[in-house]
Amino acid sequence: MSESPDSVVRTYIQSHRAAFLDDLADWLRIPSVSAQPDHDADVRRSADWLAAKLRETGFPVAEVWPTGTGAGAGTGADAGTGADAGAGTPGAPAVFAEWPSDDPAAPTVLVYGHHDVQPAAREDGWHTDPFEPVRRDGRIYARGAADDKGQVFFHTLGVRAHLAATGRTTPAVHLKLLVEGEEESGSPHFRALVERHAERLAADVVIVSDTGMWSETTPTVCTGMRGLAECEIELYGPAQDIHSGSFGGAVPNPATVAGRLVGALHDEHERVAIPGFYDGVAELTDAERALFAELPFDEEEWLRTARSLATLGEAGHSTLERVWARPTAEVNGIGGGYQGEGSKTVVPSSALLKLSFRLVAGQDPDRIERSVRDWAEQRIPSGVRHKITFGAATRPCLTPLEHPALQAVVTAMGRAFGQKIRYTREGGSGPAADLQDVLGAPVLFLGISVPSDGWHAPNEKVEVDLLLKGVETTAYLWGDLAAALGRTHR
Amino acid sequence: MSESPDSVVRTYIQSHRAAFLDDLADWLRIPSVSAQPDHDADVRRSADWLAAKLRETGFPVAEVWPTGTGAGAGTGADAGTGADAGAGTPGAPAVFAEWPSDDPAAPTVLVYGHHDVQPAAREDGWHTDPFEPVRRDGRIYARGAADDKGQVFFHTLGVRAHLAATGRTTPAVHLKLLVEGEEESGSPHFRALVERHAERLAADVVIVSDTGMWSETTPTVCTGMRGLAECEIELYGPAQDIHSGSFGGAVPNPATVAGRLVGALHDEHERVAIPGFYDGVAELTDAERALFAELPFDEEEWLRTARSLATLGEAGHSTLERVWARPTAEVNGIGGGYQGEGSKTVVPSSALLKLSFRLVAGQDPDRIERSVRDWAEQRIPSGVRHKITFGAATRPCLTPLEHPALQAVVTAMGRAFGQKIRYTREGGSGPAADLQDVLGAPVLFLGISVPSDGWHAPNEKVEVDLLLKGVETTAYLWGDLAAALGRTHR
Repeated sequence: MSESPDSVVRTYIQSHRAAFLDDLADWLRIPSVSAQPDHDADVRRSADWLAAKLRETGFPVAEVWPTGTGAGAGTGADAGTGADAGAGTPGAPAVFAEWPSDDPAAPTVLVYGHHDVQPAAREDGWHTDPFEPVRRDGRIYARGAADDKGQVFFHTLGVRAHLAATGRTTPAVHLKLLVEGEEESGSPHFRALVERHAERLAADVVIVSDTGMWSETTPTVCTGMRGLAECEIELYGPAQDIHSGSFGGAVPNPATVAGRLVGALHDEHERVAIPGFYDGVAELTDAERALFAELPFDEEEWLRTARSLATLGEAGHSTLERVWARPTAEVNGIGGGYQGEGSKTVVPSSALLKLSFRLVAGQDPDRIERSVRDWAEQRIPSGVRHKITFGAATRPCLTPLEHPALQAVVTAMGRAFGQKIRYTREGGSGPAADLQDVLGAPVLFLGISVPSDGWHAPNEKVEVDLLLKGVETTAYLWGDLAAALGRTHR
Repeated sequence: MSESPDSVVRTYIQSHRAAFLDDLADWLRIPSVSAQPDHDADVRRSADWLAAKLRETGFPVAEVWPTGTGAGAGTGADAGTGADAGAGTPGAPAVFAEWPSDDPAAPTVLVYGHHDVQPAAREDGWHTDPFEPVRRDGRIYARGAADDKGQVFFHTLGVRAHLAATGRTTPAVHLKLLVEGEEESGSPHFRALVERHAERLAADVVIVSDTGMWSETTPTVCTGMRGLAECEIELYGPAQDIHSGSFGGAVPNPATVAGRLVGALHDEHERVAIPGFYDGVAELTDAERALFAELPFDEEEWLRTARSLATLGEAGHSTLERVWARPTAEVNGIGGGYQGEGSKTVVPSSALLKLSFRLVAGQDPDRIERSVRDWAEQRIPSGVRHKITFGAATRPCLTPLEHPALQAVVTAMGRAFGQKIRYTREGGSGPAADLQDVLGAPVLFLGISVPSDGWHAPNEKVEVDLLLKGVETTAYLWGDLAAALGRTHR
């Protein structure tokens, strides 16, 4: 009786586990902090290390792609076109790798991750050197262990296990990896990079390995992220601060206007009161709400994570629904007039409002921008000049529960974890949406990190068992996905 | 046929005009800038100079009164009691002078002014040295010419002219002067000074000579100032800034709360919407409104002074009514969250709101404080901690039009100006209210400065003709006031 594929995969992983973890430790030793210019060389070294490792893994193509002002050198024909949004600034390199299937009609999968990490210093509260990985209690402690090197790296052993279990020499899907080097710096050149390389990045489905699961005991798959539109409203009243005794109560005050805009942003049910804001919003189905409610959510614990004393949000929705599936309007900043010690009796000359809107499936950032502009302009009184600026928006991503690729991920995870896989979403917004936008491919999320991993915090860690579950999931996934998506004619 | 009293006064003023202006110039040469510590000695010199000049004028008592930490040395029994509000800081000296009437039952008048001046430097745009007075085109250009040395100084020649015209050897009223040295620094020790010397300052009426008239061609008397209550509201949400993607829309945002408070501050008619705010407000009578409307008000010109593009205020009231006779709620400052370049998607940890309320007759600062606290506390959601702080309030002052002392001022001005005297008010708030409060005496305003005098601006000036009208007014006023107020039994 021959071994089951699952037991072949597990055996393969066990026999390569030590080398896999040693390799990951080598990578974690490179302090690829993209936000700190004195680590630029480390970020480049990290990209080179990964490209070499991917070639060693078997990827026939593994390239380091420059971004920003450096992009010209590596892209030949594109040199000097200035297509990058952040073309005027130097960028950190990304790594692209490709392993075509020997079946030319196999579907194409693009895996996204990043090789840069958050800053970390021993004095921030790390028990050990953040760039000297420590194995203890089944965990690896190091900056980047979970966010995101560990979660990128499980794909290397995963594809080898897939080949070992299936006897194939190439993956069942055309496998591509794009591992950027600026995610922790806000991905300033990412969209331009994706646009420039859209043909080489073309895929039937994108798998983002830069998120997490509900918990160690509740494995989950994330099905979407919210989008983001950001807006700054500058308000100008008197040409200079004027005396509130001589003029107060008789001329418009821009700080008052800023406050009134905030006051008008929501209705008494904490719904966003901007006309048209909810147009097209994909309402949660009863099935989706039931899936959220299945999760072992503890509001007290969530409040501790939120460092907050109470919940407050849109009436008729649970906390999870509010942060995962409902659009919001948030005041990120407000300022105007005198903010120092004591008092100053002025009508301020100007005020500033920074708003951001989290968007969900069905909302279009351009339409939101028009709605917000109309709403604000109608509320700014004559005598107050204004400037409303929107930054680049991020679209929401949401994969329907019945999407075959999502079901393939759930099946593969279920095999690896031996448990029912539940569904989550992500309240934040990320560069993955650019992949969806530019490549026109649905975005799926495959992450094995858990909240206790401490992303961006001291003593970041990854659970070795979960890391190996990630390896195992991808070992099953490529075959499942090829079957689920069928043959394509890309 | 004997000379009329008015012509005696005019002749007396003409014959002493040159010496009076020379003396004023000497005083203006002393750069008594209270806000600049390197001028501390000059402020003391200014006080000494004034005290000496008042003795020379004939005041039998003229003392320099220390304030703040220095106050102990000069007050004997009070030394070390620390009664000053600002006792912990050194203060600039005030000048007190007293010239009792030989009629022990004469009413007592306390004149208020200040001898300190705003900072001034040639490079701010002065055509000549701000502390080297220049006579040109019937004006004296110098810092302090109008605010306030000129307006204090006309009382010296005025009382001499009063004696000359009446043949008296002492004034018809018990005349007291209090000339403070910290008005341009916010009068930090003034109330404590008045409280400490309340017995010596006791008066039947206070005359403030630190305001102005409508214009050169429209002489006016000011009948009141608005009061002021200042309030700071601190709002605390999450223990630190938290991610607006992970938590936004599900916890209260203190910057949103600050904006909502501002949004709820006024109703759609621009009336203050705090319950109880208007309780007791002395509404303008038709006669008072008619008096305001008599003034040659030019809204376009007023807007230029306000550096503003449009008016906005309480429905049903003119601009002058809004700034002089209506209470207001103004946002002096608001701040919370990220106010730098670009964006930061946070739910801010805290926000701050600085409000001030201008008060009119009938409003009580303590009651206003309670109303504001109740109103704010009801609107701050659970989960947002708050701290509401009120500073020391200033009460409004308003002298009824029919008050005999006010009518005496109007009569005396009318004799001096040979014109109908109209009525104004002052939208701002000042330390004069402390005199009203502590001494329990009504406050009148006698000022001859005009808006073009440029208070606090480069090239401050005073019109010599108006300055001499001030002298002439006081020459008539003491007799008129003694008659109007009658004999007292203080």
